[in-house]
Amino acid sequence: MHRDHRLHEAITGHLEEFLDRRSASVTGLDTDFAAEVFGRLAGFVLDGGKRIRPIFAWWGWRAGGGTDDGPEATAALRAASALELVQAFALFQDDVMDRSAVRRGRPAAHVEFANDHRSGGWFGDPVRYGESAALLAADLALVWADDMFTGALRSMPDARERAREPWRAMHTEMVVGQFLDLRSQARSDEAESTPLRVNRLKTAAYSVERPLHLGAALAGAGEEVVAGLRRYGKAIGCAYQLRDDLLDLYGRPAQTGKAVGGDLREGKRTLLLAVGLRRARERGEHGAVETLNSAIGSPGLTDGDVRVVAELLAALGAREAVEQRLDRLLEEGTRSLTEAPIAPAAREELRRRAHEAVSRSN
Amino acid sequence: MHRDHRLHEAITGHLEEFLDRRSASVTGLDTDFAAEVFGRLAGFVLDGGKRIRPIFAWWGWRAGGGTDDGPEATAALRAASALELVQAFALFQDDVMDRSAVRRGRPAAHVEFANDHRSGGWFGDPVRYGESAALLAADLALVWADDMFTGALRSMPDARERAREPWRAMHTEMVVGQFLDLRSQARSDEAESTPLRVNRLKTAAYSVERPLHLGAALAGAGEEVVAGLRRYGKAIGCAYQLRDDLLDLYGRPAQTGKAVGGDLREGKRTLLLAVGLRRARERGEHGAVETLNSAIGSPGLTDGDVRVVAELLAALGAREAVEQRLDRLLEEGTRSLTEAPIAPAAREELRRRAHEAVSRSN
Repeated sequence: MHRDHRLHEAITGHLEEFLDRRSASVTGLDTDFAAEVFGRLAGFVLDGGKRIRPIFAWWGWRAGGGTDDGPEATAALRAASALELVQAFALFQDDVMDRSAVRRGRPAAHVEFANDHRSGGWFGDPVRYGESAALLAADLALVWADDMFTGALRSMPDARERAREPWRAMHTEMVVGQFLDLRSQARSDEAESTPLRVNRLKTAAYSVERPLHLGAALAGAGEEVVAGLRRYGKAIGCAYQLRDDLLDLYGRPAQTGKAVGGDLREGKRTLLLAVGLRRARERGEHGAVETLNSAIGSPGLTDGDVRVVAELLAALGAREAVEQRLDRLLEEGTRSLTEAPIAPAAREELRRRAHEAVSRSN
Repeated sequence: MHRDHRLHEAITGHLEEFLDRRSASVTGLDTDFAAEVFGRLAGFVLDGGKRIRPIFAWWGWRAGGGTDDGPEATAALRAASALELVQAFALFQDDVMDRSAVRRGRPAAHVEFANDHRSGGWFGDPVRYGESAALLAADLALVWADDMFTGALRSMPDARERAREPWRAMHTEMVVGQFLDLRSQARSDEAESTPLRVNRLKTAAYSVERPLHLGAALAGAGEEVVAGLRRYGKAIGCAYQLRDDLLDLYGRPAQTGKAVGGDLREGKRTLLLAVGLRRARERGEHGAVETLNSAIGSPGLTDGDVRVVAELLAALGAREAVEQRLDRLLEEGTRSLTEAPIAPAAREELRRRAHEAVSRSN
């Protein structure tokens, strides 16, 4: 039953077990709800996802001295698996806010709900129905995340108490990060500090730092371990997002599974763009500033237009500047691992994941 | 410090204290977020609301033998006050889904956020920005509700454990009820069982039954008390909603503070309408069926049109049928109080509230 080597499978197993138990009670409340909302949420959670957050929480647990086996390890991983429900909440809601039609290569939840409406020939606007239903499915996921987390730790009340602070903080940071992202797009914010702050909260804290912190808290890790893991999480989480930003413009769709320029068309304010705009202004290249500004948030950009922007940002040195920052973040992240008294098995794995986050091509 | 007589004030005090503590940490995360989102949420929660749910939770506590004074009573009321944050979540989100522009006599949250966008001359669609920001404010309220509830009960871990089931169930029922409401509008569902089921989940369970259950669970009440309170809550919560439905058509705006026919224009499927439609069909009054069906969900109805519908429903006997059901629910609710071994002070107060719910004019 050693979990280190088959985490993905074990996490899915915990989610399946939790959702199975919920299935009966939800069917008792309403069969339409069970079929249309619960079924869709369960399918989404069980079929896909990289399980990044539960996996980091697991390595936080191991880093803090948690065992690889036994009932406490099972409870810790079960609690960590609830992070996938939080993520389902975040994705369903994000897709409504961004009006994204595709998620994990399939129609987004709100699109599927709108299709129920259309194929049933129902009353009112299918798009609005789809959005509302997807938001409710998101709510259900968030509410259940808490149930799953709390329920998993019933036999470890002290661990649960310790984990409350990172669990709580993670939720708040996720919401604040999402708001800053929304607001920076609306305000056409060009400051380089803004995407860094959004990354810090929306990706780093929510996806890496707090999951690690959570796992370490469950294990009762000391302050030094927690601080080291959090520094690592901040750095590697930011790196993860910066790589994502680069892949949006320089990635290969065959590898990333996404069209190029999706973030650009949506108007996402990335560090890459902020650096590019600053440099273009510093050099007095007004045409470049104009090209960049008119591209950001233009849904009608062709792939050719995206390529022009990508080449322009490379010529301005923005791509290279972000790559250099990635190198620094990797260095910072791995150094934090070495300096803190982290259990060796976890240190090795986290180092590997740091390199992967920085150098991945999908 | 006896709370029975100044509950409203005490609940607001607990909310103020909680939000004050949060204010500093949120300002540390981001000042714009603190000003625009946190400030708006705190203002909404502190300025208004009837505090119905915390008050019912309090009377559940008292009904189950909880004291009126002392540290445990304080903790129980503090935990119950978190229901106002759940309610802020529900209202912010509902107003987005229903595109309601007004809440508690002021612009709804999404309208205020859209106004920030407009007055700042920001990029993109102010309406969409307003909706997204209001959804995030709602998320924050939901996440914090849990923090406040769990934190309040730190010194009463057994009570917290007992309260988990009603807390959990209330959240799920709220989401399921909201979905059924949405779905019944989309499907133009005419079955009388549907509005009753929506009322049962969306109003009765969420606003009365589960708050009472929660309070009773905190007090460690026995099964008979819990069952009696839940029966009362089901009946009186449904009655509350049926009175609301009647007030939408027969209430006086000067008393209700709302324009007549708001629910009708939104397309809400009420028991009143379901009974009216059934009776019109039974009598072969095709014109009446036509009038009702074309009125439901027509945003352009004049007050005169609403009056015609109201009079038609009265003529069909639907108004009287709903009034009779209200009488039965009141009888059922008060009988449940008498049959269960509920502490006398709470029984008195709950009986008074039952009459109020059924006969109120605002």
